[in-house]
Amino acid sequence: MKVIEKIREAVEGNGQTVFSFEYFPPKTEEGVENLFERMDRMVKHNPTFCDITWGAGGSTADVTLEIANRMQNMVCVETMMHLTCTNMPVEKIDHALTTIKNNGIQNVLALRGDPPHGQDKFVQVEGGFACALDLVKHMRAQYGDYFGITVAGYPEAHPDQIQGECAAHDAYQNDLVYLKQKVDAGADVIVTQLFYDTDIFLKFVDDCRQIGITCPIVPGIMPINNYRGFIRMTGFCKTKIPAELTAALEPIKDNEEAVRAYGIHFGTEMCKKILASGIKTLHLYTLNMEKSALAILTNLGLIEESKITRSLPWRPPTNVFRVKEDVRPIFWANRPKSYISRTVGWEQYPRGRWSDSKNPSYGALTDHQFLRPRSRDKKLQKDWAVPLKCVEDIYERFANFCLGILSSSPWSDLEGLQPESKIIDAQLGMINQKGFLSINSQPSVNGEKSDSPSIGWGGSGGYVYQKAYLEFFCSEEKLKSLVEKCKSIPSLTFTAVNKDGKSITNIGDPSEVNAVTWGVFPGKEIIQPTVVDPDSFMVWKDEAFELWTKAWACLFPDGDLSKQLLEQVQKTYFLVSLVDNDYVHGDIFAVFKDL
Amino acid sequence: MKVIEKIREAVEGNGQTVFSFEYFPPKTEEGVENLFERMDRMVKHNPTFCDITWGAGGSTADVTLEIANRMQNMVCVETMMHLTCTNMPVEKIDHALTTIKNNGIQNVLALRGDPPHGQDKFVQVEGGFACALDLVKHMRAQYGDYFGITVAGYPEAHPDQIQGECAAHDAYQNDLVYLKQKVDAGADVIVTQLFYDTDIFLKFVDDCRQIGITCPIVPGIMPINNYRGFIRMTGFCKTKIPAELTAALEPIKDNEEAVRAYGIHFGTEMCKKILASGIKTLHLYTLNMEKSALAILTNLGLIEESKITRSLPWRPPTNVFRVKEDVRPIFWANRPKSYISRTVGWEQYPRGRWSDSKNPSYGALTDHQFLRPRSRDKKLQKDWAVPLKCVEDIYERFANFCLGILSSSPWSDLEGLQPESKIIDAQLGMINQKGFLSINSQPSVNGEKSDSPSIGWGGSGGYVYQKAYLEFFCSEEKLKSLVEKCKSIPSLTFTAVNKDGKSITNIGDPSEVNAVTWGVFPGKEIIQPTVVDPDSFMVWKDEAFELWTKAWACLFPDGDLSKQLLEQVQKTYFLVSLVDNDYVHGDIFAVFKDL
Repeated sequence: MKVIEKIREAVEGNGQTVFSFEYFPPKTEEGVENLFERMDRMVKHNPTFCDITWGAGGSTADVTLEIANRMQNMVCVETMMHLTCTNMPVEKIDHALTTIKNNGIQNVLALRGDPPHGQDKFVQVEGGFACALDLVKHMRAQYGDYFGITVAGYPEAHPDQIQGECAAHDAYQNDLVYLKQKVDAGADVIVTQLFYDTDIFLKFVDDCRQIGITCPIVPGIMPINNYRGFIRMTGFCKTKIPAELTAALEPIKDNEEAVRAYGIHFGTEMCKKILASGIKTLHLYTLNMEKSALAILTNLGLIEESKITRSLPWRPPTNVFRVKEDVRPIFWANRPKSYISRTVGWEQYPRGRWSDSKNPSYGALTDHQFLRPRSRDKKLQKDWAVPLKCVEDIYERFANFCLGILSSSPWSDLEGLQPESKIIDAQLGMINQKGFLSINSQPSVNGEKSDSPSIGWGGSGGYVYQKAYLEFFCSEEKLKSLVEKCKSIPSLTFTAVNKDGKSITNIGDPSEVNAVTWGVFPGKEIIQPTVVDPDSFMVWKDEAFELWTKAWACLFPDGDLSKQLLEQVQKTYFLVSLVDNDYVHGDIFAVFKDL
Repeated sequence: MKVIEKIREAVEGNGQTVFSFEYFPPKTEEGVENLFERMDRMVKHNPTFCDITWGAGGSTADVTLEIANRMQNMVCVETMMHLTCTNMPVEKIDHALTTIKNNGIQNVLALRGDPPHGQDKFVQVEGGFACALDLVKHMRAQYGDYFGITVAGYPEAHPDQIQGECAAHDAYQNDLVYLKQKVDAGADVIVTQLFYDTDIFLKFVDDCRQIGITCPIVPGIMPINNYRGFIRMTGFCKTKIPAELTAALEPIKDNEEAVRAYGIHFGTEMCKKILASGIKTLHLYTLNMEKSALAILTNLGLIEESKITRSLPWRPPTNVFRVKEDVRPIFWANRPKSYISRTVGWEQYPRGRWSDSKNPSYGALTDHQFLRPRSRDKKLQKDWAVPLKCVEDIYERFANFCLGILSSSPWSDLEGLQPESKIIDAQLGMINQKGFLSINSQPSVNGEKSDSPSIGWGGSGGYVYQKAYLEFFCSEEKLKSLVEKCKSIPSLTFTAVNKDGKSITNIGDPSEVNAVTWGVFPGKEIIQPTVVDPDSFMVWKDEAFELWTKAWACLFPDGDLSKQLLEQVQKTYFLVSLVDNDYVHGDIFAVFKDL
């Protein structure tokens, strides 16, 4: 979705204040992984969009394209990619635009860009563009209305203009006229250069309105993180520093903590003044850091850790090709990125009814499915590469994960249990100790308010429901006892399957899809975003069994007894999907008593 | 759906005992209307199918085709049409088959038929068929697998065979061989000729199995209704009458009540013996009468007035083209036949999501939409053609209908309120007396068991829900007060419109569909069969306003003051659709207090 549409909907439609985060491409692979973990946490607070800057001088163009792709499709945040003219002949420009278009990204921040590395002045490359205006025109000419285009606004004029011969006032006026040209050429949002004098920004907005610029003008706020960086950046951008700010920073400039704390205070005050003027959009230059940006938003009352809202139980896609996706099998709940990548080639995403795309051809299971960020590898190594002597040692690992003693699991990309599974952690621990090795679960919910913490989703005014769900591995012997006990509890439905596909179920119609999470909202149809469907369970089981070796046994050297034990379990155990259909009176854990 | 599939699903799949009813085409129009009212009541008990005999000698062929069409599409019962060879050249046969195929009927009982009127022996018509076997072969050759074909079985041989030179035993054997040929040619169910000696039937079934007939053999049971009819029928069919039956009937033959009572007793005993043998299908020759057939089924414990089950809140279609229909707007709840006829031309019925066929082109409103059976006309005349002096007199009519004092309404094809609306009849009476003239309503339901009386549907093991709904006419002044009060109750959504299309609503997105009835069942997606959708409300309002004149004002002579009053109301009132979205804590009637 275009950023302009999101801003209009939120600000004009619902009177909300919105915010966004800016990041830059890290230089190392590990830096990239760390950035994504940070982004994942920050995106929970529902920024309107996040943007990623273009590798300076085009040197990290491919990295930028790949980061933008992962942001839009894996982090599932509305992504805006910066694109500059520096060292970019039109073919490269079009390569970048076509790539992100194919990846379902709709937003670009069109810039001229800095001078090429080692040069002082911007130089137009052969076959390239001289300025952002040319780039905007090219985008509209070549790609019509597909892209939402944002351009930069300079409350203190572009530094290059000031460097030139013009007097400061003329530079400012010229820059305003040029900005109007960019908007007239098709840009639909303006984000400003950083500033520290709020009055200058507010005057800039007034001046823009005077010359007929009507689109949103989003203030770019850069929290002060450390003194030297601040001085370098403001020097580079020729930003005016208010005397008050200098006076406050000077005495504490060597105390990084104090500078950051003051930076948060100062940023908060700037934003308060901006919001008080009636502007309801904020753009935060994070410099890939988390704390200051979140602290400012917290101070403003725009975010609250305990009030993180979810529009669906899983993070909905932002990719323009799959925005209508409204139902997912529960199986990949702890591996959403794997699900997204395995279904990326789908022509159409299930609309309302899973059965519309029955027997979907899930993408093949590839090795990259089992790749994980190094930081997670380290955690797994620490938590799970512990020597195993018998199956009880395996039970203990699983139980410890459920009880929060371990925070990583080979079957989950997430940190610890899902918040809602924490509600049933003690019962989970109990069944794991008995050898029912759970990898996915949700408690039953009978009409909780849709804005209640942990469980709620979809906004306020509605009611949400869940059928209790458990998915676990167990031995064939334990499975037999369980199947026997299920006969006396008619509300339980299960499907079990081993690695080779031998399956057993008590579901009459094997094509029937079971909705296990649904919500009832004012004036709407019933929304049912999570299902247990037998077809996709058979696809998921390959992935689930693979993880025994590719995510766990691989932590041990070849020939190790622990490794052999895990391979034995993988070969002989069953994966069981169990639903208690009685979400009103049922107790899914009752069936495990006396087992 | 084919009868064979329905029998297999119920008997083999779920171990149920099934039954069906047979009717014949009445000779008068009034007889036809009475038959349909009777059928409507009988079909509530969920017969597997109903069949309609073919006009003897083909004289009432068109009537039979039309009755079959109405059975399948208006009564919504799986319909089997008899088709005979008497006086039917192949073109006429194909005309009949093509007609019912186009009407979505899938089941035919293929018969040779009786001799033409005034003749003793069956004569093959030129260009026609000599026997049922030819008809079965023709149907399979011309129509492939489309039709479910049933044929007649004669436990005492076909009467014509016995009339011939063959000895009775030979006749029986020949008939068995012939029956096998009919099955081999493509028949998939056998229904037997009537009989009164159950042993003969059971031996017949054994003999059929011996020669390799494996399809269901459904016993045809004709309850004895009066003595003379019984003697005539058994004589015509050459049916053996057990001595016990003659002995019991002889002394009471002039007491019609006693004969019928004994007939019910005897029929019950016959059926008990048949069911005890393991046969789980019963076909009842009703002779267009209701009591005896239902009494036998009640004695057998197969039906119970208080336990009528509904698979959906509205009677689902059986027409092969619309069997997937699973959602309807609530507006036509009291005029289902009008809804069916207005949507008969649809290419596709909404599957799960109403929005799939948004802005559907509902069939035009035609005069036949306002035609009603004479019996209902009489009731309307009695209840509603009462002189009206002021609007309060109108309020009183509406209130009396809600309170059960009147059983007919110009806005309803049904007898009295829907059972679930009776739960709120006192509140309905109250708002009607205040001038909010209700024509449709449902109470809120928060997770009642799906098999609870009046409200339940979809079988057992699930939970059903409803948002409270009210639809009413009221003056513009009253509407204004209501709109004002709605502002303080955020869970209420409404749309109001007058005859000319002037509308007012508090629904933000006017295309949003609101599910007002849904059910949660084991192992299934959420089923949401009734919706309030703004698009179809605008179509419905034309019909609703028309009924003021075409169903009510028309009962008064031209120029009558009552008529003028009704026309005035039609011109000035608004039709209001009101939903209380809080089905957990809401009270939809609260908004009417102090109005």
